[in-house]
Amino acid sequence: MSSLSRNAYGKSHVRLTRVARHGAFHELTEMSVDIELQGDFAKCYTHGDNSSIVATDTMKNTVYAIAKKHPLTAIENFAQALASHFIEKFSHITSAMVYIEAEPWNRIEVHGHPHPHAFISGGSEKRTTRVTRTRDRTRTEAGIIGMVVLKTTKSGFVGYIRDEYTTLKETTDRIFATSLQASWLYNQQEVEWNESFQSVRQAMIDTFAQHDSLSVQQTLYAMGEAALAACPSMEEISLTMPNQHRILVNLEPFGMENKNEIFVATSEPFGLISGTIRRD
Amino acid sequence: MSSLSRNAYGKSHVRLTRVARHGAFHELTEMSVDIELQGDFAKCYTHGDNSSIVATDTMKNTVYAIAKKHPLTAIENFAQALASHFIEKFSHITSAMVYIEAEPWNRIEVHGHPHPHAFISGGSEKRTTRVTRTRDRTRTEAGIIGMVVLKTTKSGFVGYIRDEYTTLKETTDRIFATSLQASWLYNQQEVEWNESFQSVRQAMIDTFAQHDSLSVQQTLYAMGEAALAACPSMEEISLTMPNQHRILVNLEPFGMENKNEIFVATSEPFGLISGTIRRD
Amino acid sequence: MSSLSRNAYGKSHVRLTRVARHGAFHELTEMSVDIELQGDFAKCYTHGDNSSIVATDTMKNTVYAIAKKHPLTAIENFAQALASHFIEKFSHITSAMVYIEAEPWNRIEVHGHPHPHAFISGGSEKRTTRVTRTRDRTRTEAGIIGMVVLKTTKSGFVGYIRDEYTTLKETTDRIFATSLQASWLYNQQEVEWNESFQSVRQAMIDTFAQHDSLSVQQTLYAMGEAALAACPSMEEISLTMPNQHRILVNLEPFGMENKNEIFVATSEPFGLISGTIRRD
Amino acid sequence: MSSLSRNAYGKSHVRLTRVARHGAFHELTEMSVDIELQGDFAKCYTHGDNSSIVATDTMKNTVYAIAKKHPLTAIENFAQALASHFIEKFSHITSAMVYIEAEPWNRIEVHGHPHPHAFISGGSEKRTTRVTRTRDRTRTEAGIIGMVVLKTTKSGFVGYIRDEYTTLKETTDRIFATSLQASWLYNQQEVEWNESFQSVRQAMIDTFAQHDSLSVQQTLYAMGEAALAACPSMEEISLTMPNQHRILVNLEPFGMENKNEIFVATSEPFGLISGTIRRD
Repeated sequence: MSSLSRNAYGKSHVRLTRVARHGAFHELTEMSVDIELQGDFAKCYTHGDNSSIVATDTMKNTVYAIAKKHPLTAIENFAQALASHFIEKFSHITSAMVYIEAEPWNRIEVHGHPHPHAFISGGSEKRTTRVTRTRDRTRTEAGIIGMVVLKTTKSGFVGYIRDEYTTLKETTDRIFATSLQASWLYNQQEVEWNESFQSVRQAMIDTFAQHDSLSVQQTLYAMGEAALAACPSMEEISLTMPNQHRILVNLEPFGMENKNEIFVATSEPFGLISGTIRRD
Repeated sequence: MSSLSRNAYGKSHVRLTRVARHGAFHELTEMSVDIELQGDFAKCYTHGDNSSIVATDTMKNTVYAIAKKHPLTAIENFAQALASHFIEKFSHITSAMVYIEAEPWNRIEVHGHPHPHAFISGGSEKRTTRVTRTRDRTRTEAGIIGMVVLKTTKSGFVGYIRDEYTTLKETTDRIFATSLQASWLYNQQEVEWNESFQSVRQAMIDTFAQHDSLSVQQTLYAMGEAALAACPSMEEISLTMPNQHRILVNLEPFGMENKNEIFVATSEPFGLISGTIRRD
Repeated sequence: MSSLSRNAYGKSHVRLTRVARHGAFHELTEMSVDIELQGDFAKCYTHGDNSSIVATDTMKNTVYAIAKKHPLTAIENFAQALASHFIEKFSHITSAMVYIEAEPWNRIEVHGHPHPHAFISGGSEKRTTRVTRTRDRTRTEAGIIGMVVLKTTKSGFVGYIRDEYTTLKETTDRIFATSLQASWLYNQQEVEWNESFQSVRQAMIDTFAQHDSLSVQQTLYAMGEAALAACPSMEEISLTMPNQHRILVNLEPFGMENKNEIFVATSEPFGLISGTIRRD
Repeated sequence: MSSLSRNAYGKSHVRLTRVARHGAFHELTEMSVDIELQGDFAKCYTHGDNSSIVATDTMKNTVYAIAKKHPLTAIENFAQALASHFIEKFSHITSAMVYIEAEPWNRIEVHGHPHPHAFISGGSEKRTTRVTRTRDRTRTEAGIIGMVVLKTTKSGFVGYIRDEYTTLKETTDRIFATSLQASWLYNQQEVEWNESFQSVRQAMIDTFAQHDSLSVQQTLYAMGEAALAACPSMEEISLTMPNQHRILVNLEPFGMENKNEIFVATSEPFGLISGTIRRD
């Protein structure tokens, strides 16, 4: 005999573009929304009885309808509104998770002036939020994915374990490149979302740039500590940093000395370092 | 004050190709290996002291060296060997996780005969394994990702909740397409890995084809039950099924009736259904 | 002063799913269609006068409407029908190009019997066609993209130029892997499309498997010759073959000899070889 | 009988990272290089005689060796140097094409000051060049790929052809979003590459923002004209603009009026508009 021990379902990649028009001055917000519900849905799985099911198509419609009514000043409070909708409306739903990735649009500058309605993409870096609302509490996380940074010096790696499979040479001056993924948990549900996000982001960038790195792990920890220091409403932060290796090219066969100038970037394999830093 | 509450690191996407040569008859095995270690690494994060760190480059070398010595009859026992290596060699490592995705190579047939050394890719479907070894136990999971299947009938969706945001029409005959991701936990550490994998895979495919689906959830559950029935050494199975919608095209503006013939496939948004079924 | 020297526009990635129902036995056809028109559209570019423009949204609708009326026995004749539609209907259009990629669906087998309505993806390999219709002629090409093949022996590379930047070692036994892209031009407009496609595909696969390769270039040429021999209605064929390198791993630091067994697959950089072979 | 009517081969995705060190102040250049040679290589294809072949591995080495010697002030002159190397060294090579995509690194600002050795990715937009050198001439093109821009108003589309498959409604106020791909041909081989690139890029961005668009085609043409006006050393420019549709969401079923506020972004299908504008 077998039984259903866990279940969840939802709608992913609901793409929302919202234009707020203040006369000729427009604000643009663009995001992708994932919703996942948990609750008393077992009879749908086991007996094909859909009477407890909120259709995923309805979830999609709900995103657009609530977007119309919501001020949308931050993705965090919009995610809270969406999660609350499902928890408050349907008593058989025990958990509503809303995850949002925001597109990084910047205003175009024409002759040094921000344009009122034209935008250019800020690239691969996206701001994220994850709100998980259950019957008795709300968890609000913010985050960043795809923040690609690189430093050309002040990074080394020495003193690690040498065993029979170790061939890596120690170095006190290597390139350090990564695509940061970070998410942090707030210790309250009303925060100056945009200011907090910017403080955390800048603290991590500054630390990355200025840190004298003895390992990716150490820099990750320093960035997490700086983020916690910059944002008192943060409870903990998790960072994941792939080590996007740049490998010194051997120019000796061509009679040349490579003075830490010429490197090849490799995509695979990559080191992957993670850690969670918590306020005590 | 803050502290490190969780840490892990490893090497991802170590790509291994292994050719076993039995005279003119060759066997090809190709995979991507991820390794993640947990343990007493805190001083690396907090103080840049790397003396407890197995370099991720060493992990990569270890994959190749152990592959040379291992019979590699299944990815599951190779993952076990890799995880064991780290746990047994380093007492400060508390957990070694090894995840492998195998490339789906099939032997080319020439004039109806399997060729001894030429292969063609089986496509997007990959066999996976995840072995997590700690000081006191081993967990071995097998799985599939990217198994793309579609049925043109015997799928409906009716009787779900209708609220103010519901516009979806009920249907008793729709297309059902998905890209299955499944992983299952074995209740023992020595299994006929390849036979078990094939039994589970075939049970899920057969059930998908033959099931009279009242919802994606119901078919997912039926596939999980069939998998458990087909493989006694399985303890539980988790399935994730995106609903890759095919939407009926409205041909009325062109004076045509669409008798469930012409559809548009949409990538976004998509329903995402998951569940875990457990042997009682 | 400046002027418009070339223009073209169209709709890309029109995704069409067609189900043909013969009682309980269903046929599934799935494809992505690109349309590109050239003609007298200059005043749209230069003056914003859209009176000569067939909207790309109309092109999309046209795909679905013509699919409803067409037997769709092959993507080649469907592409011809679409291209003809635009040329015949609009006298100011000088060229209509239709490119189609077909999804590789195979019928699921249950207990050895092909299932009447359930399908499984054949993976990354796609059949393609490109029809270009102008006022006075039609060009019909067929093709394959994403045919990933590998042979573990009977491939070498020696005798190439050695200059001051050459470090590659000669080898008489290497792995040869590629993702074939091929397209061929028919010398007539009515062909047994499906039989021709299968003959060409099989001729290329057989040759890849059986060829004693002195270079990727030589195998490419042999595959092209075999394709021409297998299909009398083919006028010429172009093949593109990335060299998806597998590099021998150096196991000597670990006291092991690598007898052509253990390799690492690299994605970048890759050789890229192309050629066109023509019937004289 | 058949014969080789065209051939070419090369190395793609040679990834180069170059750090120039001026004391503590570092400059970072990162790119991916493709090389393709044409010439008298037929006997390699037809007879497996590699004596005329420059190995693609040698091409890769050549990129790194020449990078070491080259000032690398612009990707255009580096591509010229690479193309010249092959043409000048090997008389049987008739054409050497070098294509480069540069990674968009920006200097990190810490407390408002540009950091001497830390960088952050500028995202998806890449600067490109393509140099084609033959025995008697050099063609140097520059370009942009992945420049994602959006305007929330001043874009309409009316007056197009209405036929039996037309359902699109005319609009005088829609969102216009695209991912620009542009490449332009210089009329001379020594140019202030970086200044020219910046002038062309800014002219296209300014025009996109300020243009009152009656169609994608018209804006494309206006951007091309502006680019030609901004850069006297440009001979012609080709632009390709996918129409990344934002579609108004129908909120009426929820009793709401959508005042051009709430849209869904769709990836497929997309319009694809291209044109070449030439200096007379």
